[in-house]
Amino acid sequence: MAITNSIENFEMIINEDFIKKANALTPELIQTEVIPKQIVNIVQDEKNYKSVFQANIDELKNIKMGRNDLVVLDFGNHNVGYVKFRLVPVGSPPDAPAYIRIKFGEIPIEIIEDSNEYDGDIGKGWIQEEFIHIDVLPAVIEMPRRYAFRYMEIKVIDTSPKYKVVLEDVLCTAVTSGDISKVTHLPSDMEIDLVEMDKIALRTIQGCMQKGYEDGPKRDRRLWIGDLRLQAQTNYVTFHNDNLVKHDLYLYAGLTMNEGRVGACLFTNPKYQVDDTALFDYSLFFVSILYDYYVATKDEETRKDLSATAYQQIELAAREMDEDGIVKDKETWWCFIDWADGLNKQAGAQGILIYALRHAIKLAEWENNTEKIERYNKYLQKAITGAMKLWDAEKGFFISGSERQISWASQVWMVLANVFDDKIKNAQLLEHTIAVNPKIRMVTPYMYHHFIEALVQNNRKEEAIKFMRSYWGEMVKDGADTFWELYDPIDKNVTPYGSKMVNSYCHAWSCSPSYIIRKYLM
Amino acid sequence: MAITNSIENFEMIINEDFIKKANALTPELIQTEVIPKQIVNIVQDEKNYKSVFQANIDELKNIKMGRNDLVVLDFGNHNVGYVKFRLVPVGSPPDAPAYIRIKFGEIPIEIIEDSNEYDGDIGKGWIQEEFIHIDVLPAVIEMPRRYAFRYMEIKVIDTSPKYKVVLEDVLCTAVTSGDISKVTHLPSDMEIDLVEMDKIALRTIQGCMQKGYEDGPKRDRRLWIGDLRLQAQTNYVTFHNDNLVKHDLYLYAGLTMNEGRVGACLFTNPKYQVDDTALFDYSLFFVSILYDYYVATKDEETRKDLSATAYQQIELAAREMDEDGIVKDKETWWCFIDWADGLNKQAGAQGILIYALRHAIKLAEWENNTEKIERYNKYLQKAITGAMKLWDAEKGFFISGSERQISWASQVWMVLANVFDDKIKNAQLLEHTIAVNPKIRMVTPYMYHHFIEALVQNNRKEEAIKFMRSYWGEMVKDGADTFWELYDPIDKNVTPYGSKMVNSYCHAWSCSPSYIIRKYLM
Repeated sequence: MAITNSIENFEMIINEDFIKKANALTPELIQTEVIPKQIVNIVQDEKNYKSVFQANIDELKNIKMGRNDLVVLDFGNHNVGYVKFRLVPVGSPPDAPAYIRIKFGEIPIEIIEDSNEYDGDIGKGWIQEEFIHIDVLPAVIEMPRRYAFRYMEIKVIDTSPKYKVVLEDVLCTAVTSGDISKVTHLPSDMEIDLVEMDKIALRTIQGCMQKGYEDGPKRDRRLWIGDLRLQAQTNYVTFHNDNLVKHDLYLYAGLTMNEGRVGACLFTNPKYQVDDTALFDYSLFFVSILYDYYVATKDEETRKDLSATAYQQIELAAREMDEDGIVKDKETWWCFIDWADGLNKQAGAQGILIYALRHAIKLAEWENNTEKIERYNKYLQKAITGAMKLWDAEKGFFISGSERQISWASQVWMVLANVFDDKIKNAQLLEHTIAVNPKIRMVTPYMYHHFIEALVQNNRKEEAIKFMRSYWGEMVKDGADTFWELYDPIDKNVTPYGSKMVNSYCHAWSCSPSYIIRKYLM
Repeated sequence: MAITNSIENFEMIINEDFIKKANALTPELIQTEVIPKQIVNIVQDEKNYKSVFQANIDELKNIKMGRNDLVVLDFGNHNVGYVKFRLVPVGSPPDAPAYIRIKFGEIPIEIIEDSNEYDGDIGKGWIQEEFIHIDVLPAVIEMPRRYAFRYMEIKVIDTSPKYKVVLEDVLCTAVTSGDISKVTHLPSDMEIDLVEMDKIALRTIQGCMQKGYEDGPKRDRRLWIGDLRLQAQTNYVTFHNDNLVKHDLYLYAGLTMNEGRVGACLFTNPKYQVDDTALFDYSLFFVSILYDYYVATKDEETRKDLSATAYQQIELAAREMDEDGIVKDKETWWCFIDWADGLNKQAGAQGILIYALRHAIKLAEWENNTEKIERYNKYLQKAITGAMKLWDAEKGFFISGSERQISWASQVWMVLANVFDDKIKNAQLLEHTIAVNPKIRMVTPYMYHHFIEALVQNNRKEEAIKFMRSYWGEMVKDGADTFWELYDPIDKNVTPYGSKMVNSYCHAWSCSPSYIIRKYLM
C-alpha cells in the first residue's frame, strides 16, 4: 500500500516494554544462494510481455559487453535478496570507468519499462534500477540494497573503445524468515491448479516474511496492518512463523499514535516508528489479529499484554457511530477497504466494526471481563441496528454513503460481519451481488480474499473455488511467479499509483489461496 | 589524453627492483577539508555559462527538496577529493526511498550538459554523475569515488508526497601530494595577471599531483608521460615534489613493453600496468624527463638505474630514421605532438628525436660512456641532416609528410631541437610562423607550452608573454579556476573526443605558466 494522508498533530506513544519484547522476537533471516538459471529475451506476446530462452547460463562468460550491450538473466523464480557479481575486463587495460545500469524486475515488463517515463504519484525511488561506475576492474560488485526480482538486466552504458567487460559469478543471496520445510504438503488428491496456486501463494508470503511481515518486498517493504492480518491467517496454516506475528503485534501496540490509536503501518529502520497514517478499518484489525493469534497459539501472555490496546481501538471506532449506530462517512481518506475507484467506505467500515466487535467480545470473555463484555455487546447491537439501516430491502443490497452507493465490498463486509446472523441470507446476498454485478467492483487480491472467504464460510465452497480460479488462476495464466498487489482480469493495467511501474508483484495480501485451500478445502 | 590505438602482440616486461623502488616512493596524500562556499545558479552569459550567487550557504538547511528540486553548491575553487553529506528527511516518516542525482562540474557548463546526449568517442563513464537510492533516512552519504570539481549539483529525483529532504554537512576531503607551503611567493613586482595565471597553474598541477603525476584528476586520472615531462619541469620550480617524479620514472622503467619500449601511459590500480599504447615522441620523452630530473636533483643513483632504459628509447627511435636521416612517416597514430586536426607528425617527431638525442648525449657524458657518446653524436648528426632535408628554403618552413604540410607544431619542435644551432635563425622562424600563421594551428596548452618555451629560449620573451596572455590569459577570462586540457580561443568548442563533456578542465599539461614565469621571468 502507499497512502499519502497524514493525521493532524501526530504524536507517537511508545511502550518500551512492548518494544523490548518485539525486538527480542526479531528473527534471523534464512539465507539461500541462488544463481541465474538462463539468459533470456523479453518479448511482447499480444498485450503481455514474457521471457523467452536466449542462451544457457554457461554462455554468460562468452558475452563481451561494450557500449549499449545488455543481457537479461532469469533466476528461475521470484527472489528477495542481495546480488553480487564480478565484472572482468577483456581487451586492453581499462582506460575509462565501466558504467553500467542494472534493472531488477519481478515480472518481465519491468525490464522493458523506461523509468524516465515514470510520472506516477508515489516515489520514483521504488523502481529497481541502479547506475554504477566501476573505476577499477576486475571488480566484485556487491550491491548494498535488497531487491525483489526474478529478472536482472545488466546494460553496459559504456566501457571504452579499448576494452569490454564480461559478467561472472552472478549470485543472489535470498533472504526470508519463512522456513519452507515447516509447510506440509497438500493431499495428493488436490487438484493440480490449486496445488500450483498454493505454491505461488507460499512463495508470495515467504518473500514478504522478513524481519517483520512486510507488505511487499519491492514496495513498500514495511509493515502494514491490513496485510498482516491476511499474512498471519495464512501463516497459521502454512509456515507457523507465529513469533513473527507476535513481533508485529507488540510493535503495533508499542508504537501507537494519538489517543493510543494503532497506526496503519510501521517502520522499523532506522528506528521503530509508527507512520502518521491512521485508517478506521486498519486500526480495528489489531483486534482481529490479536484474536486470530490467540486462537492459533493460545499464548496467554501476549493476549493479556495486548488486549488493552485492542479495546482502545474499539473505543476509538465506536465513537464514530452516530446516534443511529451508523459509522459516520467522511470526505477524507479515512478508511481503506479496497482500491476500487469511487468506492464509498461507509458500509464496509460498518461491517468491519461489527466484525472486530465480535472478536473484542471474545477477548473480553477470555479474561472474564464482564464490564467489557456488556459494553461491547451494546456496541454490537447498536452497530448491527445501524447496519440494518443501510439495508435497502427493495434493491436487496446494503447501501453506502449519502449517494446510497452499492458496491461489492459493502456486501462482502456485511456478510463477513454476519449482520444477518443467517448463512442462507448471507449466501443469498452474495449470489445476488454476483448476479447483479454492481459497477463498483473489487480490484485487489485483498478484497477478493474477503469475498472468497465470505463465500466459503456461507456454504458456497464451489463458487469460492470458481472465483479463486477466475482471479488468482488468471494471474497464474498471466505468468505470476508470486501473486500481485493489484489485479483486475478486466483491466490489467489497474494501479492506484498513476503508473504500473511501482506496482508490487509479490504482495502479502495476495497470499490468500494457501489460506483458503489449507483452511477450508482440505 | 585518451588515445585508442594499441600495439600488436603487446607484452609487459617487469623490472621488480624498479617497481619496489617506485612503490616505496608512493606518497601519502595531504587531506584538506573543504566546505561549499555558496549556493549558485548556473546561467548563460552570451555563449558561456557562469555561476551567479543565489544564496548564502547557511540557507542550505532551509531548502526542503522534493521531486525535481535541485541545488547547486559552489566550493569556491577547483578541488580533487571525496564528498560526503547528510540527507535528512522532513515531514512524515519517509515512506519511499529517496532517489537523488549528483553531478560534479569542474566548470559551470558541466552542470548544465545532459549526459543522455553524450555520444562521444571515449568512455561515457568519465562524466561525473551519480544516481543514488537512499533507503533509510537520515543518512550520511559517503561517496566512494574521487571527483574533480568546483560545482556540485544535487537533484532530488524523488522522495514521496509525504516527505522532503534537506542537505546538511556537505564536505569535500580534498587530496593531493603537492604541498603548497613549499611553493615560494612571486616577487611583489610581478604583473598582476601573471600572478593570477601562476596561481591557477599551481592549482592545476596540485590537483594532478596524486599518488603519481596524473594527467587530469577528472580524466584520465592516470600517468601519461607527455604530461609528466611538463609537470616535472614545473615541479622543479614550484612544489619540489621531486620524489613523485622519481616514483613515476621508476614505474615507466619498471613496466616497459615489447623490446623495452617505454609506454605512453601507466595504470597503478588494481595493479601496476603499462598501457598497450606506444607513441614515438612519448617514449623519447623518458630520456628528457630523466635528464631534467638529474639536472634538478643530482640524484646519481636514479640516473644510473634508469639510463639504460633511456638509451633503449634512443635505439628504438633511431631505427625509425630512413637512410637520409628522416623519421619515417606512418599512416597509424604513431606519434602525438598535438591534437590539431590533420596534423602531420613527421617533422615534429624529427624535432623531438633531436631534442631527446641531445639529452641522451648528456646522460652518456655524465657516465663517461664514450661508446654511447660517439654513437649518439652520429645519430644526432644524421637526424639534423635529415631535418634539414625537411627545410623548404623557398617557403622558409619545415615541411612534414608526403604532402609537405606546414604546421605551427613542426616549426616549434625544430626550434626546440635547435636544428639551426642559431638563436637568430630560430627566432626568425618563429616570427615567420606567427606572421604567416599556417592553417594547421596549435590547439592544446601542451603545444602552446612548447611554442612559448621556444620563444623565450630564443630571446623573444616579450612575444612569449604576449602569447601566454592571449592563450592562458583568455582561459582566465573565460573563468578557468584551473587550466584546461583543450583550449582554442578561436574555436572554444574544440575537443578530440567527439563531445566536450569529457574534456578535462584541470589538466597537467596546462600548468606551463608557473614554469615559464618562475623559470624565465623572475
